Amino acid sequence: MKYTILTTEGRAKLAHMETVHGTIETPVFMNVGTVAAIKGAVDTTDLNAIGTQVELCNTYHLHVRPGDELIHDLGGLHAFMNWKKPILTDSGGFQVFSLAGIRKIREEGVTFRSHIDGRPIFMGPEESMRIQSNLASTIAMAFDECPPALAGRDYILPSVERTTRWLRRCKAEMDRLNTLDETINKEQLLFGINQGGILDDVRIEHAKEIAAMDLDGYAVGGLAVGESHEEMYHILDVTVPHLPKNKPTYLMGVGTPENILECVSRGIDFFDCVYPSRNGRHGHAYTHRGRLNLMNQCYERDLRPLEEGCGCPACRRYSRAYIHHLFKAKEMLGMRLLVLHNLYFYNHLMQEIRDALDKGCYTDYKYNMLESLKSGEEPGTKADGGGIR
Amino acid sequence: MKYTILTTEGRAKLAHMETVHGTIETPVFMNVGTVAAIKGAVDTTDLNAIGTQVELCNTYHLHVRPGDELIHDLGGLHAFMNWKKPILTDSGGFQVFSLAGIRKIREEGVTFRSHIDGRPIFMGPEESMRIQSNLASTIAMAFDECPPALAGRDYILPSVERTTRWLRRCKAEMDRLNTLDETINKEQLLFGINQGGILDDVRIEHAKEIAAMDLDGYAVGGLAVGESHEEMYHILDVTVPHLPKNKPTYLMGVGTPENILECVSRGIDFFDCVYPSRNGRHGHAYTHRGRLNLMNQCYERDLRPLEEGCGCPACRRYSRAYIHHLFKAKEMLGMRLLVLHNLYFYNHLMQEIRDALDKGCYTDYKYNMLESLKSGEEPGTKADGGGIR
Repeated sequence: MKYTILTTEGRAKLAHMETVHGTIETPVFMNVGTVAAIKGAVDTTDLNAIGTQVELCNTYHLHVRPGDELIHDLGGLHAFMNWKKPILTDSGGFQVFSLAGIRKIREEGVTFRSHIDGRPIFMGPEESMRIQSNLASTIAMAFDECPPALAGRDYILPSVERTTRWLRRCKAEMDRLNTLDETINKEQLLFGINQGGILDDVRIEHAKEIAAMDLDGYAVGGLAVGESHEEMYHILDVTVPHLPKNKPTYLMGVGTPENILECVSRGIDFFDCVYPSRNGRHGHAYTHRGRLNLMNQCYERDLRPLEEGCGCPACRRYSRAYIHHLFKAKEMLGMRLLVLHNLYFYNHLMQEIRDALDKGCYTDYKYNMLESLKSGEEPGTKADGGGIR
Repeated sequence: MKYTILTTEGRAKLAHMETVHGTIETPVFMNVGTVAAIKGAVDTTDLNAIGTQVELCNTYHLHVRPGDELIHDLGGLHAFMNWKKPILTDSGGFQVFSLAGIRKIREEGVTFRSHIDGRPIFMGPEESMRIQSNLASTIAMAFDECPPALAGRDYILPSVERTTRWLRRCKAEMDRLNTLDETINKEQLLFGINQGGILDDVRIEHAKEIAAMDLDGYAVGGLAVGESHEEMYHILDVTVPHLPKNKPTYLMGVGTPENILECVSRGIDFFDCVYPSRNGRHGHAYTHRGRLNLMNQCYERDLRPLEEGCGCPACRRYSRAYIHHLFKAKEMLGMRLLVLHNLYFYNHLMQEIRDALDKGCYTDYKYNMLESLKSGEEPGTKADGGGIR
């Protein structure tokens, strides 16, 4: 792995990260393909067409179905879903703590029940690394606990300490796995995850501690889980300076276009979020002037594309009127077209961000884009930066 | 419209039909896009990629939503769904008699309730023609009654007589509409529909009567609605010889690959059926050796494409194992891939049929293909020519 900063503007970084599956240009948005498929009938051929650099897949989901050992036997995730570019897998931790039923956290790891069939599963740092090694993703995430959004110090502090101990075990296990003959991707990278809720001092101490471990990259986790946007930005303001600048930084599960613009300024390289695909499936289209709700009757006879000038597969061929009709008629095609448009919008937004950084005008670009996103398009159409999460 | 027979083999015809929207090579399978979209998240770009010549849309569905007047105002169906090749619209009759709730048939037409919102709708021959003229399809179908499958002579005879009177009114109204300034497609074609249940003499008399009307084409309707395959083939054996040979012949709503092979031999040019898309959405894939049920556990580790050598977008990139996983995980992408494959299979089957006719070896091709479809692939995998209708 080689991470090269091309230019900076304040804390914002324009960088290249070279991996065994190709170079990632950052800042980058990762497209979420939970079970090795983007929801909304979008395949990896489509992802190439809409400018996707990285697909994110979920370790927990793939472990319970179809099973990481099966994917290993079939040649890993890249072969399974026919995707040659980088893949990042999460650690399973977030789902263990949010999706699974009754769970028991111990030093060794977590025992919980599958949300599919209720069978008991144990996952700890070593298990998470082995699963991700079987999946053979480009970047594996460390197994951590993502504590409840506004948990108190009494909960957060021992949780973060355990997360640090788990991180050391993750690193040791990853180093071991990468030496094994049967390992598909022997250059699998490991990103550590900073935790600490919204407690500045815990975040900072934890950042310093994991920074010393010389990992391939660093994520900020446990944000966008209930705190305000301002609290999130504040945590990044105080935490990111204590993570290595010469390593990629990943803000997990974030966010709206506005969030991304703000967080690039705070030194973030990697983003992921289900908003573009989930909102697309619910009939919402992202544009430079805010979001459109295609269920709205006002689009019934609107022959314009979702956004003038957009190069996505939906805008190049279909009108708002047609897509409105597809949603009213509950045709799957409507979902597919909006998911394609929204993922294109997010990938293209990142390209605009990189272009602005390259030209040294990111601050201006960000100001103008934030204004534009608020502006709305038609009278009576309220722009809405938020999402159905 | 110009219909040119290139060659024949027994009653089978290889022909070209020239329309304002391009030439149709027959025998042809029309891909069913009920509400101006193929179910399974397949758009008109995809249709071009899988060899589709004609898209069929449903008049009744489009009349109730989004409304044919709206589609007219937006430039017609071709502009609405961005499809430049021929479109055939049915008359709405089949849905009026099968989908709608309480209905009342009179000489003028049929009063029934919308299946969407229950509002009362009246449709007769003139209304059906006006709706189809608004849709501006290439080929319009005459408004007929499709009687219950095995109705008795007492029901069938007056129904068929009324269908004949309705056909005259359809023709008069279509001729008038094609002269109006506001008509989008002034060269819209009209196909009449032969009815008569499984009563040979009624079918034959009706065929003779409508043959004399010099329409652009002739359909055989009211089949594949409950009678046996043998009864259907018999009706074609006795009826088709009384329809004009120098006009295209369309067997409505049929059918399996086996049905198509048998009915080409009986002089049919046009086919349509929901099997390939509906069965695809239910996890079934057509192959030259019968159907596969991708839900079956035996495909869990099967790295082969759905069918070796198939050029469809699914087979060129994805394994049975991946598609099996998508169906188990209820990912929309699985449906899309199988619908693409199945429509490609049907379109390609028609190409094979045309090639065999061109080479003068259709009889041999048909025999071999029927044997192959029965053969099945793996031990224990039962080939199944039928469909989930």
